[in-house]
Amino acid sequence: MYKKSGKYNVAIVGATGAVGQELIEILEERKFPVGELRLFSSERSVGSSVSFEGKSLVLRQLDGAAFTGIDLAFFCANEEVSKRFAPLAVSAGAVVIDDGNAFRMDPSVPLIVPEVNRLSMFNHRGIISIPNCSTTPLVMALRPLHDAAQVKRVVVTTFQSVSGTGRRGMNELMEQVRAILSFREIEPKVYPHQIAFNCLPHIGSFDPEGESSEELKMRNESRKILALPELLLTATTVRVPVFRTHSESVNVELGRKLSANEARALFSAVPGMIVFDEPTRDLYPTPIGVAGRDEVYVGRVREDPTLPAGLNFWLVSDNLRKGAALNSVQIAEELILEPHGRGTSRTGPPSRSGLD
Amino acid sequence: MYKKSGKYNVAIVGATGAVGQELIEILEERKFPVGELRLFSSERSVGSSVSFEGKSLVLRQLDGAAFTGIDLAFFCANEEVSKRFAPLAVSAGAVVIDDGNAFRMDPSVPLIVPEVNRLSMFNHRGIISIPNCSTTPLVMALRPLHDAAQVKRVVVTTFQSVSGTGRRGMNELMEQVRAILSFREIEPKVYPHQIAFNCLPHIGSFDPEGESSEELKMRNESRKILALPELLLTATTVRVPVFRTHSESVNVELGRKLSANEARALFSAVPGMIVFDEPTRDLYPTPIGVAGRDEVYVGRVREDPTLPAGLNFWLVSDNLRKGAALNSVQIAEELILEPHGRGTSRTGPPSRSGLD
Repeated sequence: MYKKSGKYNVAIVGATGAVGQELIEILEERKFPVGELRLFSSERSVGSSVSFEGKSLVLRQLDGAAFTGIDLAFFCANEEVSKRFAPLAVSAGAVVIDDGNAFRMDPSVPLIVPEVNRLSMFNHRGIISIPNCSTTPLVMALRPLHDAAQVKRVVVTTFQSVSGTGRRGMNELMEQVRAILSFREIEPKVYPHQIAFNCLPHIGSFDPEGESSEELKMRNESRKILALPELLLTATTVRVPVFRTHSESVNVELGRKLSANEARALFSAVPGMIVFDEPTRDLYPTPIGVAGRDEVYVGRVREDPTLPAGLNFWLVSDNLRKGAALNSVQIAEELILEPHGRGTSRTGPPSRSGLD
Repeated sequence: MYKKSGKYNVAIVGATGAVGQELIEILEERKFPVGELRLFSSERSVGSSVSFEGKSLVLRQLDGAAFTGIDLAFFCANEEVSKRFAPLAVSAGAVVIDDGNAFRMDPSVPLIVPEVNRLSMFNHRGIISIPNCSTTPLVMALRPLHDAAQVKRVVVTTFQSVSGTGRRGMNELMEQVRAILSFREIEPKVYPHQIAFNCLPHIGSFDPEGESSEELKMRNESRKILALPELLLTATTVRVPVFRTHSESVNVELGRKLSANEARALFSAVPGMIVFDEPTRDLYPTPIGVAGRDEVYVGRVREDPTLPAGLNFWLVSDNLRKGAALNSVQIAEELILEPHGRGTSRTGPPSRSGLD
């Protein structure tokens, strides 16, 4: 979709949500060559305005004509909105980058993490999906391990922040904490139980076997992105009282032994991934340390002595950045490259500055 | 140590700590036949008083003569205090029940969870240890699985509350939350990083291979309690911003297949364990739901399809109750039984009332 003019008309559907706001920030921060920026929101926010590159942009309501003249449409509202309006955007000539679950497992829709499977994106038929925010860091870690030593089985437990539920999740945690500190009663609204000072092993909905939809997504999306349709992966996904940034405790069974140092070297070579792993100096990634950062951080890398070849490690990634908005913008950056530029990655090496 | 008088003189070392306070409550609640209750604390609290069965008891300072006339001494101060004073208590004729790490792996010291290995306690030579608060619920779940289907390998990730660090951990979380809500700066004191709204994959200290002492304890203590010296168990232990009650995400590889229902039936038959597992109705254990309860709760029981025979489940247990004080008092209750009563367990079936 390279244009000689070098400017692209961009739409954001769900512009006032947690991911939408991050998208606006990242487009500005990374100097994405935006021509027109057209912002759509739910009725509640229509008419209010948002600032972008010093201009004030009014939020609009979605309708059939919304995408006329749009080159790139980012969808980050909800599944219903994506299903209804993404095809309209495609008909109007836009490429859709969808943050939600609507099309991820559709065989005709590429599911993309540029550092892992960027070439697949160019087979799109108008829609490109990005994975669930807990899948993205995981596949970034599994790809080099598999290439070097064959990933045979993955057991992962997540620690997912409330911003995974969007702004209302963040508001719920803050309101509950305030209520508890002032001895007021709590009435859970967004989650079925109190989330403040609690952990809920419940993300999404449950199937009859007791697996949650989030756990299923992690398996199915990882299989698709890694092109390993038989990958053995079992997940337990847990909501924790953290505002932003997801963590994952990962155990991997390998086909051949890798030392912790070999694994660290493989992770370090992944663009967008930072090894932060000196636990004896209290250095390991945490959600607070990684919030707002673009890179996926990995620490606590160690051999698992219970397997002939196995590893444990701890992944931390900002679910609104790499888990959502940043990944979408990176895809857009690839799409607008001149065609002959596609063979190389524009995702440069990440800064190696540590956390503090 | 059965006494015909039916009354036992009890000492608590560390009486003002989070576990000590719980011990006092539980002794009263379960009508333990206390003769004299002698309470010891750190210098800071010496001279202040605590109420027990309507009487006010003054906190004393430990010294060489502290244990004269004492039958049972509960230690829940710190490792240094246990190492120095537990032998003195034994010399004075008391049986010590130690909550800490000082003697757990000493081959001459029984490490006891009554529901799992009660008979081992009667081999004591004056000191009985209780396991780490994250080991206790795990071995309660593993025992029946192993007996029925052979536990081949365990991968566990913990979500541990700040009360595992004692009262100062709880104060640190509360102070940090208050500071954040009033836009004041945070200065971590108890933990190396902010714990409010964060997760720290760091409990205890790290060995050169990157395993934490807490992770090592879970393996070694489980092996000792279950009498499975070769048990394959790998743990990742994580501190979460929860005040009280630990959770664990457990993956178990078995020697023969168990359905989720078979596993639930096995768990239900364990005294002190409650299956709370209807996720489609939002029913699963959480730290807030289980705090203050005596039983270990298990939910999210499901087959792990990545193994020929495997299970995932979610354990939640109050680290101050079953993880510490309650387990100690249950041991004391066994010790004071008339000798001919020892063949049967006094740990009655738990109440089956669910959480709400």
